[in-house]
Amino acid sequence: MSDPSAAQNPADSIGGRGEFALIEAITRRLPQGAEVSVPPGDDAAVVLVDGTPIVLTTDVLVAGVHFRTDWSGADDIGRRAAAASLADLVSMGASPVALVVALTAPRSTDAAWVLRIADGLRDEAALTGASVVGGDLSGGETISVTVTGIGGLAGRAPVLRSGAVAGDQVAVAGRLGWAEAGLAVLTRGFRSPRTLVEAYRRPEVPYEAALAAAASGVHAMCDVSDGLVADLGHIAVNSDVHIDIESNLVAIGEPVATVAAAYGSDPLPWVLTGGHDHALVGAFAADALLPEGFTRIGSVKERARSSADPQGEHLVSVDGEQWSGPSGHRHFDG
Amino acid sequence: MSDPSAAQNPADSIGGRGEFALIEAITRRLPQGAEVSVPPGDDAAVVLVDGTPIVLTTDVLVAGVHFRTDWSGADDIGRRAAAASLADLVSMGASPVALVVALTAPRSTDAAWVLRIADGLRDEAALTGASVVGGDLSGGETISVTVTGIGGLAGRAPVLRSGAVAGDQVAVAGRLGWAEAGLAVLTRGFRSPRTLVEAYRRPEVPYEAALAAAASGVHAMCDVSDGLVADLGHIAVNSDVHIDIESNLVAIGEPVATVAAAYGSDPLPWVLTGGHDHALVGAFAADALLPEGFTRIGSVKERARSSADPQGEHLVSVDGEQWSGPSGHRHFDG
Repeated sequence: MSDPSAAQNPADSIGGRGEFALIEAITRRLPQGAEVSVPPGDDAAVVLVDGTPIVLTTDVLVAGVHFRTDWSGADDIGRRAAAASLADLVSMGASPVALVVALTAPRSTDAAWVLRIADGLRDEAALTGASVVGGDLSGGETISVTVTGIGGLAGRAPVLRSGAVAGDQVAVAGRLGWAEAGLAVLTRGFRSPRTLVEAYRRPEVPYEAALAAAASGVHAMCDVSDGLVADLGHIAVNSDVHIDIESNLVAIGEPVATVAAAYGSDPLPWVLTGGHDHALVGAFAADALLPEGFTRIGSVKERARSSADPQGEHLVSVDGEQWSGPSGHRHFDG
Repeated sequence: MSDPSAAQNPADSIGGRGEFALIEAITRRLPQGAEVSVPPGDDAAVVLVDGTPIVLTTDVLVAGVHFRTDWSGADDIGRRAAAASLADLVSMGASPVALVVALTAPRSTDAAWVLRIADGLRDEAALTGASVVGGDLSGGETISVTVTGIGGLAGRAPVLRSGAVAGDQVAVAGRLGWAEAGLAVLTRGFRSPRTLVEAYRRPEVPYEAALAAAASGVHAMCDVSDGLVADLGHIAVNSDVHIDIESNLVAIGEPVATVAAAYGSDPLPWVLTGGHDHALVGAFAADALLPEGFTRIGSVKERARSSADPQGEHLVSVDGEQWSGPSGHRHFDG
């Protein structure tokens, strides 16, 4: 008997349908109860538990897709897995409180290696004051780490993707393109420049800057996990605006520029579409003083009513021109 | 280069160390912040978010370990994955509010099959009033479903494993052994009796009875996911008591008895060690009127000080004798 989970026709498979389209189809089937104040579609959901808004997000990293065990140490993998959820929480303006983790791994996996994953989760969580409060462990052919985080808003409204308005400044905190450059280095079989490889292995998420932005009343914010252009596209779609990036304002890190020159590559695609750094990007009022750590990289414009692109890729321009490079980060299996 | 995640020596592997020992070693490395009111070690953790206690639990199901796609439909898998987390929440006395799900699957997986997983999650969550509020989807060689649930206590204290006292009645709600018998049927290549196969595919968790028990002031409660003897062992260890099961009080369902007779098997091991039904077991005050759905199956005794078994298996007896059968549910890879 054939496996009932396998698509008979490639067009009907997850790969054929596309991840975003499938997530949209799933979301349409999920009714949202009265306690849900921010439904699926933002960096995290917000639900009321006994009247208190709780911010909730889950992310899974899979060996061979999001990381390679020969390229990243177990502690790096733990840190990255925690960072993915923590970045989603702070991008909503939530202070992270707790993480839980589900780990699958073959029974032949080194137990000490698993302990170092836990250390990485613990150390990354500690940067935000959150605790790792539980988990599940299962056999399985593939190593995967799923981290779910919850956080609180301390009475503030959550920061959504939908709050940007024309005239806003667009600003970014954290690195752009460093991890993608590090990945390019590793892909070519090198281990240096070390600073880029380390940036790939272990993102430095600007947690404090994100929470400062939330406290300052940022209009919209998003974690850069799909790539700057793609994630600004999410803000543009949800806010019904157009966003223009001014490339001369986007910092290209010195080692990124150096490696790009050495490889004869243009560093701009790494910076505009790299997804591993977990930078934070937000839309701030035109006259706002940007919180420490944020740098202006562009501005929010009225949306031209003629464009109607559901993915929002056409709602983001670079120096006034439509970006014609890759639209966003692709994982190894993309 | 060898895979750094693989144990060089089988004794150092996850399988060699054992899942429980590894979870204990992980837990010891995780400091718990001031907001953590119930740390790892119970069915779920409890953390304070902006002063409100939030109950939080995560469970992962893996194809080939916890389910087989030729034995369970996608909606069954979704229901079981949701039930695992929801049962943990209600066993703490928490009303489930929201679930998030992380799914990994090969890109060749049928998208419609994935949608039916979402339907199963949705339908099981709806039984408790909870909403599925988000998730993540990733490629990966193995299908896995990780469900994280959060719930609220409405001002009540959480129900812990540690509250049983000598003299308490031990009572169970829900089925015992039905799913294990269904698994035995499927393992032998049969598809009937259908009622047992369905019990394996789709647990019927006594959500309402569990919440009624919490409201009635049950002393301790636990979801039966490792098997009755093993899970009562958790209550016995955490409460520092001995628990005696009276086998004549433990209902053996008619189809379970019939199939056991047909296979020449003793049904008692299925009932005492089966882990797929997600029954709830609790310790109630000696004079308590048991909530609807609960049936007394034994009692809590003083712990004999001579026994010192950290796994607590020796802290549970059946008709006054130490249980010498299998100690708890084992998954396919056990």
